[in-house]
Amino acid sequence: MSKNFTDKLMDAIKLKGTPICVGLDPNFDKIPKFIKAKSFGNKEKNPMTCAAEAILEFNKGIIDAVADIVPVVKPQIAYYEIFGHEGIWCYEETLKYAKSKGLLTIADAKRNDIGSTAEAYAQAFLGEIQVGEGESEVIVPSFDADALTVNPYLGWDGIKPFVDEARKYEKGIFVLVKTSNPSSGDLQDLVMQDGSPIYEIMGGMVDSWGANDVGESGYSLVGAVVGATYPEQAKKLRHLMPNTIFLVPGYGAQGGGAAEVRPCFNDDGTGAIVNNSRGIIFAYEKMDGFSENDYEKAAREAVIAMKKDLGSVF
Amino acid sequence: MSKNFTDKLMDAIKLKGTPICVGLDPNFDKIPKFIKAKSFGNKEKNPMTCAAEAILEFNKGIIDAVADIVPVVKPQIAYYEIFGHEGIWCYEETLKYAKSKGLLTIADAKRNDIGSTAEAYAQAFLGEIQVGEGESEVIVPSFDADALTVNPYLGWDGIKPFVDEARKYEKGIFVLVKTSNPSSGDLQDLVMQDGSPIYEIMGGMVDSWGANDVGESGYSLVGAVVGATYPEQAKKLRHLMPNTIFLVPGYGAQGGGAAEVRPCFNDDGTGAIVNNSRGIIFAYEKMDGFSENDYEKAAREAVIAMKKDLGSVF
Repeated sequence: MSKNFTDKLMDAIKLKGTPICVGLDPNFDKIPKFIKAKSFGNKEKNPMTCAAEAILEFNKGIIDAVADIVPVVKPQIAYYEIFGHEGIWCYEETLKYAKSKGLLTIADAKRNDIGSTAEAYAQAFLGEIQVGEGESEVIVPSFDADALTVNPYLGWDGIKPFVDEARKYEKGIFVLVKTSNPSSGDLQDLVMQDGSPIYEIMGGMVDSWGANDVGESGYSLVGAVVGATYPEQAKKLRHLMPNTIFLVPGYGAQGGGAAEVRPCFNDDGTGAIVNNSRGIIFAYEKMDGFSENDYEKAAREAVIAMKKDLGSVF
Repeated sequence: MSKNFTDKLMDAIKLKGTPICVGLDPNFDKIPKFIKAKSFGNKEKNPMTCAAEAILEFNKGIIDAVADIVPVVKPQIAYYEIFGHEGIWCYEETLKYAKSKGLLTIADAKRNDIGSTAEAYAQAFLGEIQVGEGESEVIVPSFDADALTVNPYLGWDGIKPFVDEARKYEKGIFVLVKTSNPSSGDLQDLVMQDGSPIYEIMGGMVDSWGANDVGESGYSLVGAVVGATYPEQAKKLRHLMPNTIFLVPGYGAQGGGAAEVRPCFNDDGTGAIVNNSRGIIFAYEKMDGFSENDYEKAAREAVIAMKKDLGSVF
């Protein structure tokens, strides 16, 4: 068996000694003023370009501060898309920089569409694209993330193109199953005729969608998003989805703690990666003794504190 | 009552005399060679830039050919995102060009996330953003589409930010309810304890999500995506969702015809907009007497034929 994305993720978790994913959700309002002042200093420049440059500099600071102690980062594309094509340039550069520092990357884009369109998304985020005409034709990677979050509302033919592309390029996907937000139950908790809630049905589907692509780690390239804010549901899903790795949002700012996260892991302490975005990248706001001028140090301290917190329940 | 997005859409449908939406899904393989040859002629240029320029030229040709006979266009963002930030530049320019030709625009991006992140998407596609620092702060629109497609898997708090932004800027959203793809039933057709399928439950939610924002046309700014490929389901949904306008994919290449589309409309012939992408923009492939060199003429002929076809069932 060759190494799939999940095998690489497991190796990286072992190497760094913690299953922490740093969410790069650079809410522009919270980017330190000294970074903005620098990039907006040139009055000739388009403000969107300045914003994109400021975010990239902020992200590089975070990446430098945490690259040796976490396995993976997850940039949330909405915070980049808001600045149009300049923001997407920043997204590409952020992924490249993280990769150059030895980090795995999860593109948090929750993409979804019918088969033919899902193929285009899958190529964009995970694969390569063929571009040009005649002699000038070249094959280039586009975003080149290691994994992508995907929404399952359209069913299997909207997921399969992502699985195909992931298999081809040793990448992975994480399918939304039980999300961390307050109203996730509107649809996900509806109860079926046989008494099962939707999130369990989805969990079963997701586990089966990955069944042909289980790596040497025992986990498939099709992961699931399961929120830390619903530990009871996570416990049931962990049992129902033995071969599925969980990407767990909701720790920290959204209210989940180490105890809430524990059910997402198997008994051997593997099977999940826990995301923290605001709690790490904007740790300077909440931690004593830090200001926005040393946001990188605050981020590193926050990772160390989170590692200790998670360690307390294993 | 002021005019909301749906009122404007209704006015445009009346003005143009048909409820056709042209889907701008520019699959790169099918862009005519003469356009590619021109943009790839400069060997110094990045191939992604050349691809983006070729697509923009293709789109402008389509828009010029149909702007006086259709009310709205719907660029599908995956076909642009595949070319990274250059592709997104092309997406922005396509939206601007369509608007300059008097067309309404629907950004087909099927975005979705938890509340704080959904806000960023909503600002990006429908609203304005505040960018800069101190004196240099400016407020600019980002994509400035008239409407956006949205995925409901995360429930109401993942939808509300889009509704808020749409209300503020006289824009609209279309929420996925029953999609046109073959496996849409995997999740959408699951049957609940009370015997209702998920797509009906979602239909009821979507109608209620728009209930406070019904315009003078009788339709709310929260629309629904309902596929032409499932006419029986569409009929039930039309009955369940009196204040909701339907965006109907699946006509043409995906197999739906005028008869399949009819149930998406109310008795008075309003209440839906029917999308056709490949069948119009790449009509040159299938229509006798046309080659890729006159793809614009073929597109216009295809719109005229579709208008006639739809007219046959009213």
